[in-house]
Amino acid sequence: MAVVKLFGAWFSTYAYRVIWALKLKGIPYEYIEEDLFNKSPLLLQYNPIHKKVPVLVHDGKPIYESTVILQYIDEIWPQNPLLPADPYDRAVALFWIKFADDKGYLMSKLYYADGEEQQAVVKEWLEMLEVMEEHALIRVKKFFGGDKINMVDIAFSFVAHWLGVFEDVLGLEIFEPHKFPRVSSWIQNFKSIPVIKDNLPGANKMSAFYKHVREMMLGSKSN
Amino acid sequence: MAVVKLFGAWFSTYAYRVIWALKLKGIPYEYIEEDLFNKSPLLLQYNPIHKKVPVLVHDGKPIYESTVILQYIDEIWPQNPLLPADPYDRAVALFWIKFADDKGYLMSKLYYADGEEQQAVVKEWLEMLEVMEEHALIRVKKFFGGDKINMVDIAFSFVAHWLGVFEDVLGLEIFEPHKFPRVSSWIQNFKSIPVIKDNLPGANKMSAFYKHVREMMLGSKSN
Repeated sequence: MAVVKLFGAWFSTYAYRVIWALKLKGIPYEYIEEDLFNKSPLLLQYNPIHKKVPVLVHDGKPIYESTVILQYIDEIWPQNPLLPADPYDRAVALFWIKFADDKGYLMSKLYYADGEEQQAVVKEWLEMLEVMEEHALIRVKKFFGGDKINMVDIAFSFVAHWLGVFEDVLGLEIFEPHKFPRVSSWIQNFKSIPVIKDNLPGANKMSAFYKHVREMMLGSKSN
Repeated sequence: MAVVKLFGAWFSTYAYRVIWALKLKGIPYEYIEEDLFNKSPLLLQYNPIHKKVPVLVHDGKPIYESTVILQYIDEIWPQNPLLPADPYDRAVALFWIKFADDKGYLMSKLYYADGEEQQAVVKEWLEMLEVMEEHALIRVKKFFGGDKINMVDIAFSFVAHWLGVFEDVLGLEIFEPHKFPRVSSWIQNFKSIPVIKDNLPGANKMSAFYKHVREMMLGSKSN
């Protein structure tokens, strides 16, 4: 039996956070794909509070909430650190991780919204991109942590890959690269890392999936 | 000039989190009261992203977001640790801290809501109290961390003190002690610690303040 197990879902940006962290650390693990429309008894047992993926099970003990899992992984397997060693730099990193996490709701809000509501969500996305451009990435080299990927890059991955899928689903252009040159080059740097590039859900498959989910949601709204 | 400065507001549960942490560690600091209706240029300079208190300034460098500040304080001043030493126990603590933080929005939602909206928020409060009773406090002794207060207790302080103020403002009883016996005895334990008891904003003063804020908000809604 594997010592490390990960319960995930193939389209979940939160599950990918954990996949990348484990791969960057070189930790072997067993991956269990969850059907979120028909959750397994094991998932409900391991994560009774939120009933969500990802759940990491290490030596039989479950850990949930992706940012909590990432900090745990970084403590247990210190190679290729995902947080800065200096306490102040670490506080700054934890601030941005929390910022990214607190903005995660913008994903579902975007692909469920329509009309005026959609315009309001797009405005929120643009405000977040502006903060990334003007504050988060202002002193950044290649990555948030300098020359190497760290936990902040991983936390912002929904901007690097998932936003493009939602734009496709909705037929919108929210992220105009020339307006956010720092974010734009960060996305290129992030997606050029082998562990990221080789472990990303396909954009076409995701678009088809999220189109389907959106149609279901909009259908149930009008009923 | 003080090495440690804290920008706070007298009614803010988030500012008190930091006050208690500094006092539990025995760290002297200069406290600066912010008028949140007329924020100081220094606050805006230190926390340009959220423009909120608390902000801790240590050796001239600002840290914001109360849970990030608490982790920083715990690393810089390791005496009277606020997080468990064991990585798994620490992950569990960080999960509950995030849970408490993610529910913080229930405070403003409660004192701004009316009618049906109010009933919906009360339901959310009861669901949260149920999770605390049935999951968070199930293996707890006196405090979340065992026999001593830790960061999880501090994170849930809005349940221990602020909820009662909102009940008074709204003329509602949301927390019925006999329905949540574990939460109830935790509140008593938490409020019996000298550092907490001696550093809590007065309930009457808070009630008057939040009544005024609520009237302003409801007034601006109907205009």
